[in-house]
Amino acid sequence: MDGATRRAGALCGTRRLRHPVSAARRLLEEGRVLALAAGVEDRLGAAGEERMDPAWFITAERAAQLETARAAGRTLLDHAGEAARAAGDDAGTVGAVARDAAGALAAATSTGGMTNKPAGRVGDSPVIGAGTWADSRSVAVSATGVGEAFLRTAFAHEVDARVRLAGQSLAEAVSAALEQVRGVGGEGGCVALDAAGAVLAFNSQGMYRAWVDPAAGRWGLAIFGETELEGGPMSELVA
Amino acid sequence: MDGATRRAGALCGTRRLRHPVSAARRLLEEGRVLALAAGVEDRLGAAGEERMDPAWFITAERAAQLETARAAGRTLLDHAGEAARAAGDDAGTVGAVARDAAGALAAATSTGGMTNKPAGRVGDSPVIGAGTWADSRSVAVSATGVGEAFLRTAFAHEVDARVRLAGQSLAEAVSAALEQVRGVGGEGGCVALDAAGAVLAFNSQGMYRAWVDPAAGRWGLAIFGETELEGGPMSELVA
Repeated sequence: MDGATRRAGALCGTRRLRHPVSAARRLLEEGRVLALAAGVEDRLGAAGEERMDPAWFITAERAAQLETARAAGRTLLDHAGEAARAAGDDAGTVGAVARDAAGALAAATSTGGMTNKPAGRVGDSPVIGAGTWADSRSVAVSATGVGEAFLRTAFAHEVDARVRLAGQSLAEAVSAALEQVRGVGGEGGCVALDAAGAVLAFNSQGMYRAWVDPAAGRWGLAIFGETELEGGPMSELVA
Repeated sequence: MDGATRRAGALCGTRRLRHPVSAARRLLEEGRVLALAAGVEDRLGAAGEERMDPAWFITAERAAQLETARAAGRTLLDHAGEAARAAGDDAGTVGAVARDAAGALAAATSTGGMTNKPAGRVGDSPVIGAGTWADSRSVAVSATGVGEAFLRTAFAHEVDARVRLAGQSLAEAVSAALEQVRGVGGEGGCVALDAAGAVLAFNSQGMYRAWVDPAAGRWGLAIFGETELEGGPMSELVA
């Protein structure tokens, strides 16, 4: 979602697009907000989006996680709990928020969804207002977690509304919106950004996250509750 | 969406389910918020939802509208404009909001979508927070119109947020949220309800609407800007 124009693009049910965010951006530029991938993958492919055989996306680690989840009869958060972590399940949803030099905000989210999810399930990631939101007047948000809870609380737009309509700080808004998620039995978190700086909050056990702050001239990364596990000057990022 | 529990269910891309709202309610009860119909129609059918051949849904009027839209190379709102009305296109999206005796609010929306829409397009109707929202603490909303604009403004949840977080009246909130829709080039409207009573607002040319008000003991209906085109005592509704 482009917060400057509030244009948005999203896909659900992708099976072959190698770069879903790039494909979503193409839909944004076409004026399409949300599309079933089955209806647009061929057209987007013909327009230049790279397509792969569905088998290309299968990794041994993910296949093993799926078998574990099936054997347990459970649906697992891609980054939740000891079982998932023991299975090496630590590279699921990818979320990004950004602010350009002019102050425009943007957000993007890409995910494979929960492991062993029911056929046809759509989570919050492609739903503008639930898993993803950007409005340069307020905030950019990309969420991850139990999608049903983020959908039922319109999480990303709830953060926006609390900043824009209720005058809350971004930290207050994210905390209150995550409280709503907990209230309907969910867990997860988000990366969020406003004009004043970045906030990240989560209520799952951990979340792999990294950031670049040009104003401070630094990058950083963290996993659990720590503020920074590793970090350094931005010059290290320019190989 | 059930505003008492904030549980929700929705489907996109249905081709065979005769009663999509009933099917969506079944998903709500299963804890699924949003699903691709292609992945669940068979299962829902086996669970008792009536399925029809896709051809059953085709009517001569709708087929003619589609041909008209294709010939003009346009995508049409199902209830917008002279062209659509001349073609008899006046029975599109169906939205409902309700409040029970205990004050619980609920909302539901069903639509065939815009005429001559691109393959794979999903509008706002099945998106909780965009076309449909219910929270017994604030409002129930069901919207209709140019779905892209309602998605880009998280319309139904925007109404909720304005009532719940900004202390606006339902009428103020609906008006302000429709202003956001206009701001991104959209038109449409909604039916909305709070604990104090119903408000309907629209910015398309007209909207067929009807209501039952047990407190007042009356039913009514209207199409354009009038407050009531026809109406009468509720006893007339009990055949």
